Amino acid sequence: MKVYLDNNATTMIDPEAYELMLPFLSDKFGNPNSLHSYGSETHPALRTAMDQLYACINAKDSDDIIVTSCATESNNWVLKGIYIDKILKGDKKRIVTTTVEHPAIGATCTFLESIGVEVTRIDVNEEGVITGDDLRRVMSDDVALVSVMWANNETGMIFPIKELASIAHEFGALFHTDAVQAMGKISVNVRDADVDFLSFSAHKFHGPKGVGGLYIKDSMPLTSLLHGGEHMGGRRSGTLNVAGIVAMGKALENATKFIKYEESHVRRLRDKLEDALLALPEVTVVGQKEHRVPNTILASIKGVEGEAMLWDLNQAGIAASTGSACASEDLESNPIMEAIGADSELAHTALRLSLSRFNTEVEIDYAIEKIKNAVTRLRAISSSYAYAPDWHKSGL
Amino acid sequence: MKVYLDNNATTMIDPEAYELMLPFLSDKFGNPNSLHSYGSETHPALRTAMDQLYACINAKDSDDIIVTSCATESNNWVLKGIYIDKILKGDKKRIVTTTVEHPAIGATCTFLESIGVEVTRIDVNEEGVITGDDLRRVMSDDVALVSVMWANNETGMIFPIKELASIAHEFGALFHTDAVQAMGKISVNVRDADVDFLSFSAHKFHGPKGVGGLYIKDSMPLTSLLHGGEHMGGRRSGTLNVAGIVAMGKALENATKFIKYEESHVRRLRDKLEDALLALPEVTVVGQKEHRVPNTILASIKGVEGEAMLWDLNQAGIAASTGSACASEDLESNPIMEAIGADSELAHTALRLSLSRFNTEVEIDYAIEKIKNAVTRLRAISSSYAYAPDWHKSGL
Ligand SMILES: Cc1ncc(COP(=O)(O)O)c(C=O)c1O
Ligand SMILES: Cc1ncc(COP(=O)(O)O)c(C=O)c1O
Repeated sequence: MKVYLDNNATTMIDPEAYELMLPFLSDKFGNPNSLHSYGSETHPALRTAMDQLYACINAKDSDDIIVTSCATESNNWVLKGIYIDKILKGDKKRIVTTTVEHPAIGATCTFLESIGVEVTRIDVNEEGVITGDDLRRVMSDDVALVSVMWANNETGMIFPIKELASIAHEFGALFHTDAVQAMGKISVNVRDADVDFLSFSAHKFHGPKGVGGLYIKDSMPLTSLLHGGEHMGGRRSGTLNVAGIVAMGKALENATKFIKYEESHVRRLRDKLEDALLALPEVTVVGQKEHRVPNTILASIKGVEGEAMLWDLNQAGIAASTGSACASEDLESNPIMEAIGADSELAHTALRLSLSRFNTEVEIDYAIEKIKNAVTRLRAISSSYAYAPDWHKSGL
Repeated sequence: MKVYLDNNATTMIDPEAYELMLPFLSDKFGNPNSLHSYGSETHPALRTAMDQLYACINAKDSDDIIVTSCATESNNWVLKGIYIDKILKGDKKRIVTTTVEHPAIGATCTFLESIGVEVTRIDVNEEGVITGDDLRRVMSDDVALVSVMWANNETGMIFPIKELASIAHEFGALFHTDAVQAMGKISVNVRDADVDFLSFSAHKFHGPKGVGGLYIKDSMPLTSLLHGGEHMGGRRSGTLNVAGIVAMGKALENATKFIKYEESHVRRLRDKLEDALLALPEVTVVGQKEHRVPNTILASIKGVEGEAMLWDLNQAGIAASTGSACASEDLESNPIMEAIGADSELAHTALRLSLSRFNTEVEIDYAIEKIKNAVTRLRAISSSYAYAPDWHKSGL
């Protein structure tokens, strides 16, 4: 059996989205900007896709949703655009964010620091999130932008976006959220949350890789990251990835239809898996279930090195992760574990399991069995586990 | 019959490239960075694709080819990266380019000017190109980068890239070329031309939309445009568009195999079409045939407004353009016609016909007939044509 439990890294494509994109990869190859039928025959599907995106996040007609190549691009665009508009050309000085953002925010902030921008990174609490008070404490009117993720990619913990946005606005700052891990898993309503910018990536909600987007409230000005031709209203140049856009729209529409199912069925499977993990001795899971997106578990299994676990699970046909896929080519410790203050052993024994609506109960039962076997096997051969004095008490 | 003669705007996908990408859009959906079989099963195809890219432009192992989302991104990356590294953090001041670059260069330069960069735009001659002497005249040691396209998108005219690169280097500047319209049409050899950076877009050589690349000689440092995770050696972050990369590699390999065919067969069809156009009275074509890529004609048909012509041709199933697809939603005059000093009437009567290896002789014969009909019909109803005194002499 093959069981894919790494949906926070990327997802299988929605079969309907896949079917819809094929004509635009083959016969209907026209450039939408062209003044002939090859161009215009792409327009209805593009319009439908854009409508789907607007509807799914409850954007207004007067808002912009600009298609990009990925959330990394969207995140870079917001941070660098705000740098140009509000810091270089304006009178603001600072960007405020957290210590647990994805590298697409974290590394971009580090770059901006290298050219003189002040960045404040708020520490997270032991649950891996920040509160409104944490934000308020560092705010002042020199802040150009607050950027906080909607849900964390490793823990699945949900941040209080609506409250944080409102605090940012109190101080005259704009608010951006990286909603990559929230979209398609929980309801994302830009009008209710009142965010100014929101990033997403199609391949995290069963769309294809290489396409994403940036929501911009009231189509407000933001210096482009990709200058060039008059695509996307001149805001993001580059020939439109028609197939990608069409598939992204349908994928988000379907994912949004399944939000209730995520909340019930996916959550139930996740909880079943989590309970089985927690029934093993010396296993901890980061963050309360209720405050997480319904699909994610970040566990730490004492004495079981993360990469060794992945190897065993892979042999059994199960795909999981030790954390973010962006850094997993290095055998590093899990960064969020470090951010929440876990000791180094915990950080090296991280296991992230992330489900999707395509997982079945049979798969989860199979995964539970295989994970248990792997834990037993790996602890038996783990010197650190065997010799750690307090493990003896656990009776394992 | 349907005849696609707008290959400089975008191309139909290579059927082999299409077939190759499908598994990576469906079953093989893994994130290449993941440490399990869904991740690793993407590696062989990615490696093959990268090898194809290196081989086709004759890059060295020590060079970098970084996959981006399109040439617009590649162009923005080079210009903005050089701005950071050599102007903001270095002691250079200027970027040198031409007046006929694609907006992905032109608009990016305009943006850089808005933040204090000096940009020198060299005028083109009546053939639409610049010479080595034109470049030499404006060079000095304050130039960070020279950026000149390999072939123009509207005229197809080829620039003397090797000579220009060597002049840039004489003055201690780096050299970038936007090779979007050269790749797959003529031989592009980065080692021979000795360029430092080269941009390309897959959909211009029968690959899919939404993927392109930047060649970087000797993997030299260049501040990233997309900061984030450790993708592409940390140089261009964002989850890899596996399907796009795999298809781009195969598409370029096949296009490169067909370069000789482009030089002979496509050129012969293009010349046949061009000769038929020039046999009509009051038609001019920009640039000598021999100095152009083999597929492109930019004609001006006196008395025939460009958009009216496109409409007639479209009715006959023929796709053409009045110039770059990037601006064609506006009924503007053709910018390169203006750059080479054509009068405003010429600039409004531009017709660009661009072929590919998938065009057949039957298609070209059909297009010739339909174009002739359209010219006759439109001139008959054109007040400007009928009343222009010197037209009467032509006997039409
Ligand atoms: C010369 C040139 N450069 C850059 C581009 C931009 O390519 P893309 O739209 O794929 O980014 C084009 C395509 O229109 C082009 O013709
Ligand atoms: C929270 C978060 N932000 C941004 C990204 C970047 O997405 P992409 O790689 O599609 O640009 C990811 C994916 O790894 C993510 O989890």
